[in-house]
Amino acid sequence: MARFVDVRTMVRWAADRGVEDIITGMIGYLEEDFRRWESFDKTPRVASHTSFGVIELMPTSTEEEYGFKYVNGHPSNPVRGYQTVTAFGMLADVHNGYPTFLAEMTVLTALRTAATSAMVAKQLARKDSQTLALIGCGTQSEFQALAFRAALGIDSLRIWDTDPAAMEKLVRNLEPLGFTIEITGSAAECVDGADVVTTCTADKANATILTADLIRPGVHLNAIGGDCPGKTELDAEILNLGEVFVEFPPQTRIEGEIQQMPEDFPVTEFWKVLNGTAAGRTSPEQITIFDSVGFAVEDFSALRYVRDAVDGTDFFQEIDLIASPENPKDLFSLVSAAAPLAV
Amino acid sequence: MARFVDVRTMVRWAADRGVEDIITGMIGYLEEDFRRWESFDKTPRVASHTSFGVIELMPTSTEEEYGFKYVNGHPSNPVRGYQTVTAFGMLADVHNGYPTFLAEMTVLTALRTAATSAMVAKQLARKDSQTLALIGCGTQSEFQALAFRAALGIDSLRIWDTDPAAMEKLVRNLEPLGFTIEITGSAAECVDGADVVTTCTADKANATILTADLIRPGVHLNAIGGDCPGKTELDAEILNLGEVFVEFPPQTRIEGEIQQMPEDFPVTEFWKVLNGTAAGRTSPEQITIFDSVGFAVEDFSALRYVRDAVDGTDFFQEIDLIASPENPKDLFSLVSAAAPLAV
Repeated sequence: MARFVDVRTMVRWAADRGVEDIITGMIGYLEEDFRRWESFDKTPRVASHTSFGVIELMPTSTEEEYGFKYVNGHPSNPVRGYQTVTAFGMLADVHNGYPTFLAEMTVLTALRTAATSAMVAKQLARKDSQTLALIGCGTQSEFQALAFRAALGIDSLRIWDTDPAAMEKLVRNLEPLGFTIEITGSAAECVDGADVVTTCTADKANATILTADLIRPGVHLNAIGGDCPGKTELDAEILNLGEVFVEFPPQTRIEGEIQQMPEDFPVTEFWKVLNGTAAGRTSPEQITIFDSVGFAVEDFSALRYVRDAVDGTDFFQEIDLIASPENPKDLFSLVSAAAPLAV
Repeated sequence: MARFVDVRTMVRWAADRGVEDIITGMIGYLEEDFRRWESFDKTPRVASHTSFGVIELMPTSTEEEYGFKYVNGHPSNPVRGYQTVTAFGMLADVHNGYPTFLAEMTVLTALRTAATSAMVAKQLARKDSQTLALIGCGTQSEFQALAFRAALGIDSLRIWDTDPAAMEKLVRNLEPLGFTIEITGSAAECVDGADVVTTCTADKANATILTADLIRPGVHLNAIGGDCPGKTELDAEILNLGEVFVEFPPQTRIEGEIQQMPEDFPVTEFWKVLNGTAAGRTSPEQITIFDSVGFAVEDFSALRYVRDAVDGTDFFQEIDLIASPENPKDLFSLVSAAAPLAV
């Protein structure tokens, strides 16, 4: 039997444990996996594009454990009442290839994206950071806020979205949780005075959410909305203002903000910062930029974390995914009408 | 909610409906999909190899529907009491990317492989074929026998396996179902007088199960065990005796029997035979060879068939795989501790 966490159970678990507590735990698993980055089989994601959107499979593996995520991206979904992104994922035992754990990953991806942002900011943002600017108040925004509070103690937010209802939703969700929130009137006003800036907008185009003149010295810029070919958020000039950190260069050069830059544009792989083999922030004035696109290893860490965290609780069910005839060569015995029906 | 057929339910359904009836229905879906072969997005499979075996994702898509299969291949599994191959698969709606149907595919792959063999033999074997030689009496063997009886009316079997217990198992499973079965003492003896020959052995090596002198005029050879790089069953000389038919040439040239042949070795794509744009068997004396490796479209057909066949029955359950917040931008509302716990 494999274990399975469905949407209802993931939601119940997250509400019970608390998002900040989960993100804190998940950062530990992410750091563990980023530190052993070189031991992962980093297959490129497999995308199936149609006129409606994209469906992707994101596999990765160590010598012990295999994982993949199914995820779609359909920008036109919200106007039709659907989620832009839905996902589920799986872990398997590399030794015998048997699936061990399945989980919904729509909620889990929101948690892991925020946890990844916070893991990176823990290394790159100024230690005295107090204010987070959130540009884009969609699905990811509240998770970002909670992740930065959990990891860096930031509880002061400046927010901006072209949709006032999205900003009101964020205030409604986060003010009861103790955040100080300032609604601003533009992206320029939003980033003014912020120590950390998260851009997370959904427009599938080469947008210019921020221009170089708005980025002050010492800022850590967490750019997560530019995450597929043709979808960027930053004026290219911003990428020349500081050091750019990425997850996996071959993927980021196609999907990230740096798709706007030459092939040999210099970047630092974040796992090296964590390992101490590359420099992170080198001065309080430096501008650091995390060009985040989301990578399979992060989903792997998130799945591992949930699997371990729900062990010993009732936050999972068992599902019957692996046929087990008594004699491995006699699969037919299971479906023979003469066979007992229980397996 | 997505529908889910677990192992227990797949087995119950197969026993209730009967394997031959299922295979007959599945052949119809396979033929429908092979006829529209050109409308499929035929992504190559994504394999993760380790010293223990391989784990693969096999996606394919039309403009309406997306499907993929997770499948492992671990040759050393049976000696440790595990199945060599386990699998599960999924269908999704291309319009919004939402998963619609999940199923175990260990049993289902056995059914679809046999159904594919039978679909091809219906076109290529002599109409007066009466005897099937089965070389290799493992997991797939009983399904092969039932598929050939369902599609061609063949009920006389000659069998061979290096493991006597495997042959006894086949007799035990199939004799009660009305087959006439002759246990033979070698591959040479097994194919003697057979009209159709299925080779389905598990040895992961370049084996020579059959040599060219054993292949009589008029035989249809269904070669399914040679299905990954370095794993073949036939003496290369056999491939020069007749016409070779394949599923998807770019994959078969890497994985099939023709991996032994030059890059430009001539083959016929089976879907063209079905469409009438390529010749099938051209004379009673011709030797026809199906170099089968298994392709994602076949899994897609099998999943579609099961989904439709169990509709209106109790042979599925519903699972909660897609987060559906009332406001698509407000995923956080689901996990807020203040939110009602039911979703």
